[in-house]
Amino acid sequence: MSVLVVGSMAFDSIETPHGSADRVLGGSAAYFSLAAAFFAPVRIVGVVGRDFPEDHLTALSRSGVDLEGLQRAEGKTFFWHGRYHEDLNVRDTLEVQLNVLEDFVPHMPPGYEDTEYAFLGNMHPDAQLDVMSRLKRPRLVACDTMDHWIHENPGELRKVLERVETVVINDSEARMLSGHNNIVRAARAILKMGPRVVLIKRGEYGVFQFSDDATFVVPAYPLEEVLDPTGAGDSFAGAFMGCLASGAGTGDRALRRAIVYGNVTASFTVEDFGPRRLIALEREEIDERYRRFVELTRFHD
Amino acid sequence: MSVLVVGSMAFDSIETPHGSADRVLGGSAAYFSLAAAFFAPVRIVGVVGRDFPEDHLTALSRSGVDLEGLQRAEGKTFFWHGRYHEDLNVRDTLEVQLNVLEDFVPHMPPGYEDTEYAFLGNMHPDAQLDVMSRLKRPRLVACDTMDHWIHENPGELRKVLERVETVVINDSEARMLSGHNNIVRAARAILKMGPRVVLIKRGEYGVFQFSDDATFVVPAYPLEEVLDPTGAGDSFAGAFMGCLASGAGTGDRALRRAIVYGNVTASFTVEDFGPRRLIALEREEIDERYRRFVELTRFHD
Repeated sequence: MSVLVVGSMAFDSIETPHGSADRVLGGSAAYFSLAAAFFAPVRIVGVVGRDFPEDHLTALSRSGVDLEGLQRAEGKTFFWHGRYHEDLNVRDTLEVQLNVLEDFVPHMPPGYEDTEYAFLGNMHPDAQLDVMSRLKRPRLVACDTMDHWIHENPGELRKVLERVETVVINDSEARMLSGHNNIVRAARAILKMGPRVVLIKRGEYGVFQFSDDATFVVPAYPLEEVLDPTGAGDSFAGAFMGCLASGAGTGDRALRRAIVYGNVTASFTVEDFGPRRLIALEREEIDERYRRFVELTRFHD
Repeated sequence: MSVLVVGSMAFDSIETPHGSADRVLGGSAAYFSLAAAFFAPVRIVGVVGRDFPEDHLTALSRSGVDLEGLQRAEGKTFFWHGRYHEDLNVRDTLEVQLNVLEDFVPHMPPGYEDTEYAFLGNMHPDAQLDVMSRLKRPRLVACDTMDHWIHENPGELRKVLERVETVVINDSEARMLSGHNNIVRAARAILKMGPRVVLIKRGEYGVFQFSDDATFVVPAYPLEEVLDPTGAGDSFAGAFMGCLASGAGTGDRALRRAIVYGNVTASFTVEDFGPRRLIALEREEIDERYRRFVELTRFHD
């Protein structure tokens, strides 16, 4: 099965205590697609400007990403410039240029509307609702969001949450959205807003999954060197959705396996700047690290 | 097998966003003992003042703790007063009165020197070395420490680390001791200082175990209500050591199981103020939560 992702395509300029990268391929849809493509065919709905280099598109299509839904608009591509602290869990956004993303209206090519697995990347909740309304036979629709929409468009966001199957957000957003500091309470409160499954990304501490009938908690893959955390969350979501779409179904066992694959795939992303490691990655490396992760976490047999 | 613990006995006054407790039973040896006693007989080496109530001693001996090595000195019991932030991972020490702990010299009753499993709670490294030198047939000696000794007595602390089997410290202390922010690097650096196993306590994020031949990473038991984190780390260490001393041995499989038992036991401690929950706890509740934890973390079969 294919996975559809609607999200941002960007140029990222990244600074971390370990170095920097200037105007590299970025955006939630880019990281999501590169990760998901290891597991299933991917369809991007997004927009880039005229300045977007052919190389980046080639890298995506070579990975198995269908770019028919990627619009090329007059103007410049979305740009983000961020700087990470010594504690890589903390970052400052130094500059954002929305550019072509400002007037972006998702366009779905014929055929895309039949996609059963869809991920609504972080964007205006109205755009997320619009995409959702066009899906003819959604099997699993998941969404991300961010502090901006939680504060500025709470009503629209609530409508999204009422309709999605799964929410994938990070811990600070979960706290903000729910008003609870405790992660279990936060997850329970978000579950009441509509989704069947709440997935909370905790960065270097792993993932917490909460639903009415199952709770799953799993640490992150421990890494000796983290160069750049950018895109880890979107890589997680991509591998998670791709793994499910690849035929595993949406039962509890399949969800847990997909979460661990998400975890493991994201652990590669942060080992180099931007999407470099993800682009060079082989599926066999993911499977090998998955097996290693089983060994790292096993305690009961 | 018995477990020996050398550490502080205290009165704690605790403030958290959820309430407070005044002059309750505290100290690393108290929490350690109450937790370890669920698994094995415990021997305390420590000191209290004349103001220490008989009730506290009764609570300990009823749990199966041998108090022969607990000195009663002229003067007042060690006192700690702390306040936790809204983020319970952060706390301020408002007052410390060392009192009888100031001149404490560990005294080992006859028979204690034969104990094979020993835990050197957070105290002056010279006192830890002294206790170690008296153990006739140590099988597993573990130690804790804190920022004060890392900064003030690095030379003496290094001697302790050269001789212990296992170090049990929290993540901020691991970073301080090693000079590395990354937890894997920190653990690797501490391993080079001498111990065979490094156990890093990450509070609500679980535990990271590192040794030359095995790495183990496990999340904490997710709790909906944390009232007071005081004593969680010492409860973890107590259940961990008690579990090993109960006959599980010191192999990789036994270590992992003991770590999870430590995790699960500590999850009870934080559910109420001071050691209240730990004192009321039944072994069957620990086993039940252990089984639940297996379900919460299982993803591969």
